[in-house]
Amino acid sequence: MAKKEQTAIEPTRADDYPEWYQQVIRAADLAETSPVRGCMVIKPWGCALWENMRAALDGMFRETGHVNAYFPLFIPLSFLQKEAEHVEGFAKECAVVTHHRLEADADGRLVPAGPLEEPLVVRPTSETIIGAMYAKWVQSYRDLPVLVNQWANVVRWEMRTRLFLRTTEFLWQEGHTAHETRQEAWDETLKMLGVYKRFAEEYMAIPVLTGEKTAAERFPGAVNTFCIEAMMQDRKALQAGTSHFLGQNFAKASEIVYQTRDGGREFAWTTSWGVSTRLIGGIAMVHGDDNGMVMPPMLAPSHVVILPILRADGDRETVMSYCAELAASLRARTYAGAPVRVEIDARDMNAGEKSWQWIKKGIPLRVEVGPRDIAQNAVFVGRRDRPPREKSGQPRDAFVAGIAPLLAEIQAGLLERAREFRNGNTARMDSMDDFRSFFTPANAEKPEIHGGFALAHWCGKEECETSINDELSVTIRCIPTEREAEDGACIACGAPAAGRVIFAKAY
Amino acid sequence: MAKKEQTAIEPTRADDYPEWYQQVIRAADLAETSPVRGCMVIKPWGCALWENMRAALDGMFRETGHVNAYFPLFIPLSFLQKEAEHVEGFAKECAVVTHHRLEADADGRLVPAGPLEEPLVVRPTSETIIGAMYAKWVQSYRDLPVLVNQWANVVRWEMRTRLFLRTTEFLWQEGHTAHETRQEAWDETLKMLGVYKRFAEEYMAIPVLTGEKTAAERFPGAVNTFCIEAMMQDRKALQAGTSHFLGQNFAKASEIVYQTRDGGREFAWTTSWGVSTRLIGGIAMVHGDDNGMVMPPMLAPSHVVILPILRADGDRETVMSYCAELAASLRARTYAGAPVRVEIDARDMNAGEKSWQWIKKGIPLRVEVGPRDIAQNAVFVGRRDRPPREKSGQPRDAFVAGIAPLLAEIQAGLLERAREFRNGNTARMDSMDDFRSFFTPANAEKPEIHGGFALAHWCGKEECETSINDELSVTIRCIPTEREAEDGACIACGAPAAGRVIFAKAY
Repeated sequence: MAKKEQTAIEPTRADDYPEWYQQVIRAADLAETSPVRGCMVIKPWGCALWENMRAALDGMFRETGHVNAYFPLFIPLSFLQKEAEHVEGFAKECAVVTHHRLEADADGRLVPAGPLEEPLVVRPTSETIIGAMYAKWVQSYRDLPVLVNQWANVVRWEMRTRLFLRTTEFLWQEGHTAHETRQEAWDETLKMLGVYKRFAEEYMAIPVLTGEKTAAERFPGAVNTFCIEAMMQDRKALQAGTSHFLGQNFAKASEIVYQTRDGGREFAWTTSWGVSTRLIGGIAMVHGDDNGMVMPPMLAPSHVVILPILRADGDRETVMSYCAELAASLRARTYAGAPVRVEIDARDMNAGEKSWQWIKKGIPLRVEVGPRDIAQNAVFVGRRDRPPREKSGQPRDAFVAGIAPLLAEIQAGLLERAREFRNGNTARMDSMDDFRSFFTPANAEKPEIHGGFALAHWCGKEECETSINDELSVTIRCIPTEREAEDGACIACGAPAAGRVIFAKAY
Repeated sequence: MAKKEQTAIEPTRADDYPEWYQQVIRAADLAETSPVRGCMVIKPWGCALWENMRAALDGMFRETGHVNAYFPLFIPLSFLQKEAEHVEGFAKECAVVTHHRLEADADGRLVPAGPLEEPLVVRPTSETIIGAMYAKWVQSYRDLPVLVNQWANVVRWEMRTRLFLRTTEFLWQEGHTAHETRQEAWDETLKMLGVYKRFAEEYMAIPVLTGEKTAAERFPGAVNTFCIEAMMQDRKALQAGTSHFLGQNFAKASEIVYQTRDGGREFAWTTSWGVSTRLIGGIAMVHGDDNGMVMPPMLAPSHVVILPILRADGDRETVMSYCAELAASLRARTYAGAPVRVEIDARDMNAGEKSWQWIKKGIPLRVEVGPRDIAQNAVFVGRRDRPPREKSGQPRDAFVAGIAPLLAEIQAGLLERAREFRNGNTARMDSMDDFRSFFTPANAEKPEIHGGFALAHWCGKEECETSINDELSVTIRCIPTEREAEDGACIACGAPAAGRVIFAKAY
C-alpha cells in the first residue's frame, strides 16, 4: 500500500467533505464565525476575493446598460406584505426592528425602548422597497426601462449556518429592472442569466448549467426563476445565481404603472437577479483540494507571492533588492487587462511553514528566491494547480515574460478539470432503480459520496418531485434552458414526459 | 437695478440656503427621501459619485498599509455595553432587532414573532464587535499592528434628517486598528487624519482645517478625537471626517490583550476613523451654485457630456458618428491616472432643457456638436465652473489634446475658490462684543448669513464652551493641530488662554 501523502487540510475531502470545507475556509483565512449568531466575519483575504468578484460583475452589468443605486436597509412590514407569496416566502426568516433606542430599566439594565409604530424588516431582498421607488420614478413609457443594480448586505435568519454557503447576513448584488413589454423583461431575465453563466465560467472557472426552476423552487412572487447550477466535488449541486422574471406581480403590488405609447395605462414588467458571497463557498468547493484553497487567477487577490530565502545574514540586502526588482517587473505585466498582482512575503519565519500558508490560501504562483537562484538569474516556481513539491527552476526573464500566459493556462486548466469532473459525474437515467442506486451512498458513513447529476425525465407534476425529494433528498435543480426534445417516461410515475431535467442533491 | 439672472435652482443660496441645498440634491438627481423614515435612496448619479470617492479613499488606505474586511451588521446588546461612555453615547439612536420572524396573529395580521434572547443592535459603529474579533486575532506582539478598514452601512436613529447630511442609515468606511504601543496608535490616528485632509483637498477640492475636538464633542469612548472641518457657503462648519485615538479603552472593554516582547501581557492600543456619504452633502454645499451641483473633476461620475445638435433629420448619421468618434478620442486620454469619462446624450428632447439637466447635475464639461461645428472640425464647449451661457467654440483636436489640463484647471479652480471663500470668512477675534456681532445674523429672516469661522482664545473650561453654545449656537469646531502659541484671554470668561480655537455654527 502506498504511503498516504501528508496533506495540509485535515480531514481530506474523501474523509469528511463537509468538515474539509470548513477547514479550508479557516486555513485559507477567508472568513470565520462571529459571536453574532449566524453572521460571519469576512477576513481580508476573503474580502479581497469578493471585491475582485464585485469589480468583474460590476463591469459586466455596466456593459449591459445597468447603473448602481442604493436603497434602504429597512423595509416597512406593510411593504413586504404587498405581494402575498413574497411575504409568505420570507416571513420565517426576517430580522425585525421594533424599537429605536435603548433605555435603562428599573434594575439599571439596558432594554429596548421607543417602540416603532410599524415594525421594520431588515431587507431579505429588496423587491418591495425598490418597487415603491420605481412607482414614483416611472410615469410614462419614456421612463422605461429602469436598469438598476444594488450592492448590499441582506439578512435571512438561518437556524443552521455554514460559512459563505448559508449565513444570516450575506453580501450580494441585486439587479432590479422595469420594462415596457413582457418580451423586453423576459429578454432581460435571460440576458442576466447569461451574464452569470459567463462570469461563472470565465472568472470563477466553474462550469454551470442554466435552466429554469420548477414551481416548488421558484423565488417567492416570481413567474419564472432561472438559475445557474454548479457541481461541487462532493457531487452536490450549488445554486450559484438566479434571475427572476417577475411578470407584473411586483408592479401590481407596488403600483408601478406607466402611460403607454397610445395613451393607456399599464403595469410595468419587472425582473430581479442576484448572486452573493455564497459563490466564494462554491469556488472553495469546486477548486479546493486537500492542501486548501485554490484561487482562479482571474479573481485571485494576488497572483504571485515572492518568498525570499535568507540562509545567511549577509544575504538579506541582495535578496531583498532582487525580489523588489522582480516584483516590479511582474507588476509591469498585464493579465486580463490589469497589472499582475504580486506580494513579497518577507516575514521572519520558517520558510516551509510560510510556503504552506500560501498554498493553503490558494495563491496561483509561489516564487522562491535565494542567493543561488540569484547567482543564476533564475527563480524557483511552484504552481498551485500542481502538487506542492513539484517546483521548477526557470530563467527569471522567461518567467516574467511568460507570466500572463501562465496565469491564463492555470485558469483554463481549472475550468477544464471542473468540467471533466462534472461531466464524469453526470448520467442519463431511465429507471427508478438506477436512479435510486445513483443517489444511494455506497458507504453509509460517507453520505456525500453518491452519483452526481442525473438527467431524467419528469412529467411535470409536483407530487413526483416531492416523492423523490422525500425518498432520496434529491431535487430538480433545473429544467435545462437548451434541452433536446425527447419523448420519455417520468422517472417517478412513468407518465409521458417531453424532456430530461437535472436531478441532484443540493446545498 | 440690474435684472436678476434666471437660475435653475429655486430658491437661490442667498434667498434660502437650506432649501436651496435640498433642491440641488433633487435637481442633480443625487438622492431622494424614501418611505422608510430617515432613510434615503442614493440614485445612480449620487451612487457613482460615492463609488469614485470610495475607490480613491480605498487606494489611499491601501497605500498606507490597510486591508479591507467585513464584520456583522448586528451587535449583541451586551457587546455595546462593554464600554460605558460608548453605549451612553449611542443608546438614544439605536435600531434594535428583537424578533427573527413574522407570524399571523389572531386577526391574521403579521406581527413580529420568535423573540431573541438577547436584542441585537444594528451597528451605529463597529468598535465593540470588531474589538471582539481582534481579541481572538491578537495573541502576541507579532500579531500587531492590525490595520483593517470596512466599507459598510450603519444606522443611527435620527429624528430630523436631511439628505446625505443626517440620515438614519448612511454608508461609510470605518478603519479599526490595533497597535503595540501608544505612540504607534497615536501616529496612526494622525496619519489617517492626514489622509482625510489630503482626500478632501485633492479629490473633493474642499480645503479643511485639522484639529482636535474638545471633550464635549469627542467620540463616545475615545481618548482624543481629531477632525477635518470645512466651511460651507452659508459659512457654517461641516465635520467632514474624524480620527479617534482610543487609547486602551476599547481594548480593555473587548479584552484585546497581547504578549509583549518581554513576555508580559498588555492591552493593545487602538484607533478608529471614518468618513461617510455625508461628504456628498459637503461637496454640494461647498461647490454648488444657483444652477445646481458642481462636481469636482477628480470625483465626477462623468467628465464630459457630448450633446449632439440635430436640426434636420438628415444630420443624424453624420453627427452621431462624429460624436462617437469624439467620445472615443476623449476616452483614449488619461486624467488623474484613468481614462477620461465621457457620455453621449442622444435623447430626443429639447436641446436647451437637456443642457440644463447636465448643468444641474454638475458635469464639468458640456460639448455641443452640430453640423456647423463638424464642418469646421470644431466643438462648442461649456464649463460648469463658468456661467451657463459662456460657451466657446474650439478646434476639436486642440480640445481633445487639452482635456486633461482643462479638467485639472477646473479642479484647481474649485479648490482655490473654496479656499478664498473660507479665508475671507475667517476672522481673529478678541472681544465678546465682536464675537457676538460676528455670529449674529444681520437679517433675522436669514439666520444662515453670519460671520463664519472665528479664531478666538479659550481657557479650556467646558462651561465657557457651553455658555457660548447656549447663547449663540456656536461650538468649538476644533483646537487646530498646528496653532501658534499665543497668550490671550478666553473669549468667554477672560481667563488666561494659550492659543486660539475655531468657533463656528455647525451642521
